[in-house]
Amino acid sequence: MNRQTIMVDRDLLAEPRRRAAELRADFTRRGILVLNILSSPGAGKTTLLQAIARHWQGRRRMAVLVGDIATDRDARRLAPFIPAVQLTTGGACHLELPLVERGLAQLGDLDLEFLFIENVGNLVCPASHDLGEHLRVLVLSTTEGDDKPAKYPKAFRTSHLLVINKTDLLPYVPFSLESALADARSIQPQLPAFAVSAESGAGITDWCAELESRRNELLANGDVFSPRR
Amino acid sequence: MNRQTIMVDRDLLAEPRRRAAELRADFTRRGILVLNILSSPGAGKTTLLQAIARHWQGRRRMAVLVGDIATDRDARRLAPFIPAVQLTTGGACHLELPLVERGLAQLGDLDLEFLFIENVGNLVCPASHDLGEHLRVLVLSTTEGDDKPAKYPKAFRTSHLLVINKTDLLPYVPFSLESALADARSIQPQLPAFAVSAESGAGITDWCAELESRRNELLANGDVFSPRR
Repeated sequence: MNRQTIMVDRDLLAEPRRRAAELRADFTRRGILVLNILSSPGAGKTTLLQAIARHWQGRRRMAVLVGDIATDRDARRLAPFIPAVQLTTGGACHLELPLVERGLAQLGDLDLEFLFIENVGNLVCPASHDLGEHLRVLVLSTTEGDDKPAKYPKAFRTSHLLVINKTDLLPYVPFSLESALADARSIQPQLPAFAVSAESGAGITDWCAELESRRNELLANGDVFSPRR
Repeated sequence: MNRQTIMVDRDLLAEPRRRAAELRADFTRRGILVLNILSSPGAGKTTLLQAIARHWQGRRRMAVLVGDIATDRDARRLAPFIPAVQLTTGGACHLELPLVERGLAQLGDLDLEFLFIENVGNLVCPASHDLGEHLRVLVLSTTEGDDKPAKYPKAFRTSHLLVINKTDLLPYVPFSLESALADARSIQPQLPAFAVSAESGAGITDWCAELESRRNELLANGDVFSPRR
């Protein structure tokens, strides 16, 4: 965008905010925990979803809306495991509500416990858009380096859970789990973090237990989750 | 952005386009080859610049403008090797011309042969902004997966050179150089590609030779490079 001031006579974001809150309340009523997954391109969002599906093996009812700028590759990767609908932004750098709503309509009236929204691979823009999720999950991979949190502060500030993926590559890359965590917590001191390898399955049991416990919290207490700004 | 139509009475991008073309012509006159480097977060842009500086060891005069949303980490990493100025966007997902111009003023009147502009780590938004560069370089790392080109088509369509980085990790990650290249060339059939490991130095000699040959081309033929759309 260029630095030109355009005067408008209303808050353009008020309507999407209201609609996101409505969607979230509806998910809560239906007992569906909704997670918006953010990461850089190639950090392993789709592989993580495959690992979750493999771990649960049908014991939990989940579906995925998967965003990309182009191609339906990720939906095709997920379809053998779980119901998956591809959302293609056609150029846009993040998912927006209307596209998510179209995806929901395509999924139809599934009786779900978990809905995952896999955002476009981008550590910046998706952090500014509430998609009606209960929890925002940030996936950081060890191959990206442990200096990323403070360089992408909004994504780390607005997420509820951090997954550090590709721990199987730790012997081969210059990445310190401690440094990465310290850096992330300089942005958000209480950010819960889970180290996993979606590829090998390491850490996936704990991660799935956390998801189940968060859903139990939702069922017990209603809409306790709120979007972070 | 929300899908609201705002009518304006002129082309907001005409002025930045004109200014970028002016800057490029000025760089050409001064014999400075300017490269705009794009990649995902953590694909190795800064490490690649360190590897280039190490290879040239002062035989070529280079400087770097390095973009990030927050922190001056990358400039501090580069400063021991080469003149480097950090450009901090304060939230924006890509570099824009006014920030680049401020960085140029800070660099001062250096007698350069190469100027590298390291963009914000983002495979989407930077692809839409001409910064006055001669060549756009896209860095894809092996850890991101070989399915990325068609998912981020604009970055691959508008770049002049592709660097595939982190070849040292090929034994440990599911990545096929052939598939990645085939995918990139389904977007841009003649895209020249260089496989390197900025960490180990493999492939850096060929890559630097390419940069020198591109600069000779610029000196011999003037402004033969044009921005891709």
